[in-house]
Amino acid sequence: MSRIGVLGGMGPSATVDFMDKLVQLTPAARDQEHLPVIVASLPQVHDRSRAIMGQGRDPLPQLLAGIRLLNEIHVGVIAIPCNSSHHWYEEMSRSSQVPILHIAQCCVDAIAAGAQDKVAVFATRGALASGFYQRELSRRGIDHFLPGESDGQQHVDNCIQAVKAGDVEAGGQHLEQACRNAAESGARAVIMGCTEIPIAARQADVHGLALIDSSLELARASVAFALERGWNRQQWDC
Amino acid sequence: MSRIGVLGGMGPSATVDFMDKLVQLTPAARDQEHLPVIVASLPQVHDRSRAIMGQGRDPLPQLLAGIRLLNEIHVGVIAIPCNSSHHWYEEMSRSSQVPILHIAQCCVDAIAAGAQDKVAVFATRGALASGFYQRELSRRGIDHFLPGESDGQQHVDNCIQAVKAGDVEAGGQHLEQACRNAAESGARAVIMGCTEIPIAARQADVHGLALIDSSLELARASVAFALERGWNRQQWDC
Repeated sequence: MSRIGVLGGMGPSATVDFMDKLVQLTPAARDQEHLPVIVASLPQVHDRSRAIMGQGRDPLPQLLAGIRLLNEIHVGVIAIPCNSSHHWYEEMSRSSQVPILHIAQCCVDAIAAGAQDKVAVFATRGALASGFYQRELSRRGIDHFLPGESDGQQHVDNCIQAVKAGDVEAGGQHLEQACRNAAESGARAVIMGCTEIPIAARQADVHGLALIDSSLELARASVAFALERGWNRQQWDC
Repeated sequence: MSRIGVLGGMGPSATVDFMDKLVQLTPAARDQEHLPVIVASLPQVHDRSRAIMGQGRDPLPQLLAGIRLLNEIHVGVIAIPCNSSHHWYEEMSRSSQVPILHIAQCCVDAIAAGAQDKVAVFATRGALASGFYQRELSRRGIDHFLPGESDGQQHVDNCIQAVKAGDVEAGGQHLEQACRNAAESGARAVIMGCTEIPIAARQADVHGLALIDSSLELARASVAFALERGWNRQQWDC
């Protein structure tokens, strides 16, 4: 019985949003046609962005414990709906017996397929300092830039923080501001490179900009991986 | 590290809805203040209602395998956001080293606290044939009745089926019909005793009836259980 493994809780709402996307993306008329999923929602993992910025405790031992847990219960692939934690992607992959999908690669693959240019990258300060989005975009030759400090990144930070605190409306307002500033800088598209941002986007009025949802792209890749292997057609005999 | 265990996937959308309720009900300003949760979303479990009606394969071995999995990874309590599966509550409880919260008891406790009467019970045919809601309501002296066959239960069945197939709007329309019929029969409140029904209720216009959400009451009980034990204040050292 093969299952999708999700290392989540970073944050918890983003994990619920990701699970919802898995369900919505799976063609199914009844329960039994859906994909089996094991979710370890472990919000006690230390703050990823702060750790990358040298301001907090190292979350890697906790991330590895989560990967170990999912391996022990024999999931067939792992998705992590938290962008910043992909700073430790190599370490997690090496410790896992099953593949881990890379959220930024899934996201940039989707952009490359659509040939977007002038892409603004919205993410935590830690994820941007880590640089995995910029490297992936450069490798694909996609023209991209980061928000300015005073007029953009602060709104992105506030958006993420508001969603984590349960205030989606305030998150949406900060996202609108950040998008307005990005559009004024010439952006035609925005990568929502933190999984809290798509939740804020539900309550944001952002016209004229394509929003690329890293959580949705990871969900698409996860469902495709599982459907290709027929995990929705498994007999489960106990 | 104590965690809430969720045996889910019955159906998958109802599990997502339940997880969303866990997050919303937990007072938290940042990720680390949320509750750790392990979800086994296993939609391949055989149809519970059909099995109770003698029309399908027995899901009990699969339910017990799910309970065993959650016990093996040391959850501290188990919630099952599927009413019909509570037909096998005793067998599951006996096989678990940790307590399993009973969705119908949580739901009826909430009604008893509000002293509702003339309550209509909306649930699968299997759950109604099993009778655990009726027994619990009678034990508490709460006046209750079941929908009529032609004018009510068929709409409840269609509502549940529509949500499981992803058509929430159709589900809402059937729920409206079922509620209208219940109100004409004198109902003042409706137990949404199947976890798909609250999803349909998002798109239903039901006035004059109190809707009692079994999934929400199970989530409230789960969060209360975990907060009482301080599971949101655990240090997680690896």
